[in-house]
Amino acid sequence: MKKYNFSAGPAILPQEVFAEASQAVVDFAGIGLSILEISHRSKEFQAVMDEAQALVKELLGLSDDFEVLFLQGGASTQFAMIPMNFLGENETAGYVDTGSWSTKAIKEAKRYGGTSVLASSKEDNFNHIPKGYDIPADLKYLHITSNNTIFGTEYHSLPDTDVPVVADMSSNIFSKPIDVDRYGLIYAGAQKNMGPAGTTLVIVKKDFLAKQVREVPTMLDYNTHVGKQSMFNTPPVFAIYVSMLTLRWVKAQGGVTGVQKLNQAKADLLYSTIDDSSLFYNPVAKEDRSLMNVTFLMKNKDLEADFLAAATAAGCSAIKGHRSVGGFRASIYNAMDLEGVKVLTEVITDFDKKHG
Amino acid sequence: MKKYNFSAGPAILPQEVFAEASQAVVDFAGIGLSILEISHRSKEFQAVMDEAQALVKELLGLSDDFEVLFLQGGASTQFAMIPMNFLGENETAGYVDTGSWSTKAIKEAKRYGGTSVLASSKEDNFNHIPKGYDIPADLKYLHITSNNTIFGTEYHSLPDTDVPVVADMSSNIFSKPIDVDRYGLIYAGAQKNMGPAGTTLVIVKKDFLAKQVREVPTMLDYNTHVGKQSMFNTPPVFAIYVSMLTLRWVKAQGGVTGVQKLNQAKADLLYSTIDDSSLFYNPVAKEDRSLMNVTFLMKNKDLEADFLAAATAAGCSAIKGHRSVGGFRASIYNAMDLEGVKVLTEVITDFDKKHG
Repeated sequence: MKKYNFSAGPAILPQEVFAEASQAVVDFAGIGLSILEISHRSKEFQAVMDEAQALVKELLGLSDDFEVLFLQGGASTQFAMIPMNFLGENETAGYVDTGSWSTKAIKEAKRYGGTSVLASSKEDNFNHIPKGYDIPADLKYLHITSNNTIFGTEYHSLPDTDVPVVADMSSNIFSKPIDVDRYGLIYAGAQKNMGPAGTTLVIVKKDFLAKQVREVPTMLDYNTHVGKQSMFNTPPVFAIYVSMLTLRWVKAQGGVTGVQKLNQAKADLLYSTIDDSSLFYNPVAKEDRSLMNVTFLMKNKDLEADFLAAATAAGCSAIKGHRSVGGFRASIYNAMDLEGVKVLTEVITDFDKKHG
Repeated sequence: MKKYNFSAGPAILPQEVFAEASQAVVDFAGIGLSILEISHRSKEFQAVMDEAQALVKELLGLSDDFEVLFLQGGASTQFAMIPMNFLGENETAGYVDTGSWSTKAIKEAKRYGGTSVLASSKEDNFNHIPKGYDIPADLKYLHITSNNTIFGTEYHSLPDTDVPVVADMSSNIFSKPIDVDRYGLIYAGAQKNMGPAGTTLVIVKKDFLAKQVREVPTMLDYNTHVGKQSMFNTPPVFAIYVSMLTLRWVKAQGGVTGVQKLNQAKADLLYSTIDDSSLFYNPVAKEDRSLMNVTFLMKNKDLEADFLAAATAAGCSAIKGHRSVGGFRASIYNAMDLEGVKVLTEVITDFDKKHG
């Protein structure tokens, strides 16, 4: 039976990517060696790294004002690396608190300098993106979480400010075009739209990089990795290779504009099915609904186990909601096709007819 | 033509591991999903993590006094994490300088506390492991690099001291039994004997862990990862999975005692061939020769290009020496079989007969 993978992360990637990656594990680029055993200094891997960087630049429309890095340690390491490098003891960074990941980022920043939590939707269990708050012009940077995987909210426009934005885009990078010039630094764990777990994309503007405030350990210094083009030490070769394959696929879909259209169509179908049902509802403010992670709760919790069984029987995998929200969550990243969303909406509609 | 991969790292892994990993990239454990797209919280991946940890413990004979972690960032990140966590401003750690990696570890430690470089073989281009130096009893720890990939030297016995040893075992872990109770902390980038690039093994003794001296960022705190069994954030799923497969293979070879026998036989054959030749020599003190990385230089450098061509024609890949030593280097990690070493020794012997 075909499986439809709605996992929040690590998450679905294109089938073509799995096929090509599987082949490379036994024989990469026809050289008679596995991608897992070749030197990162080999010309074959250098070509992968170069293409991965070039694709990031091309897909997001980055000028040469930006550096593109493939690091390790996940977004969680970036939570600390960013203020460690950029937030002086007597400086203040603004943070918007839109859920668990923002909260963790704020915790790490407090070790290094002033942090001002400009707005939070915590009291409403993070069911919306705060708006209309004041953003002081002298902030070192403004940190946002562009999409909140757990709560299913997403920024559809940036706050109005000249302060450089630092964004955790782990769960919506490469899902739509972005206004890159507004950002000082963008970071993303690969394991949603970009590739498998094991590498972290960092995009940093050169003029932001120049604002480093303190000396830090070699591996935690962005300049180390910029200077060596992400090859200061052995990079996570396979995770970067699979990311490169995935970015090639994004390009073949018409780039981020192409995938955005499909993402909008999938989200429209799923949200309208939920809205039209009598048993399910989405708890998020309509204007802030995520195109990536769709949460849906049941008014009658007693039916949850039955619905989960029906969805599982139809091949829908990993739709259980996060414990912070409950109910269900369907993550519909780039690689989820419209067919998969249709299968899930049919399960919802059928269940609603039977029990609603 | 069959290729024999003598790369220093990322390096050769068993063919059976490549075959099984390749299959898991398209369908893991028969669940209809790729190992690259499943949640790290899934029961299928939890089983991988549990087995990987258990295999590390079993193969090295670790009691419950030790914690086993799979982190990211390579040995290079450990260079800083270790003193950041364990070296107080008014404490001193001893370091033995046996090459580039030791030198990098010393540089990071100096940021946090006292470092005493007890001995160095730098003046002899690191061609031996220093011996007979004094080790003060009040050192917080003694740091060594157990095998020096670039220079081809290896510790065959530990320095005589009661100070807890901290060892970078990136290039010889799981190649032989070790006296685990002498160590406070062992770390190793996976990409030689353990798996592909992308995860870092850390083994830490509980009583050493208790000697943490300062609060550090969440992701750089060993206790974070101990408390969450390496799942505080998304771990590098695939790199851990392939490491688990490789450790299963080590076990099937008779464990570290089994692979040690083969490693000794391979090294004996290669070193004796070099010693018996008229054109080649190994620059390392005999008692310190590495069983993992065999360096061999030519007395007449004009013949190097011809030898490289002959070796390449025989299928021997990645034998060019590191620029710090020159000449040639054959890395003969666990997964290199005796046949591969025989092919290389035949090239050496034939070349010696023709040009010697």
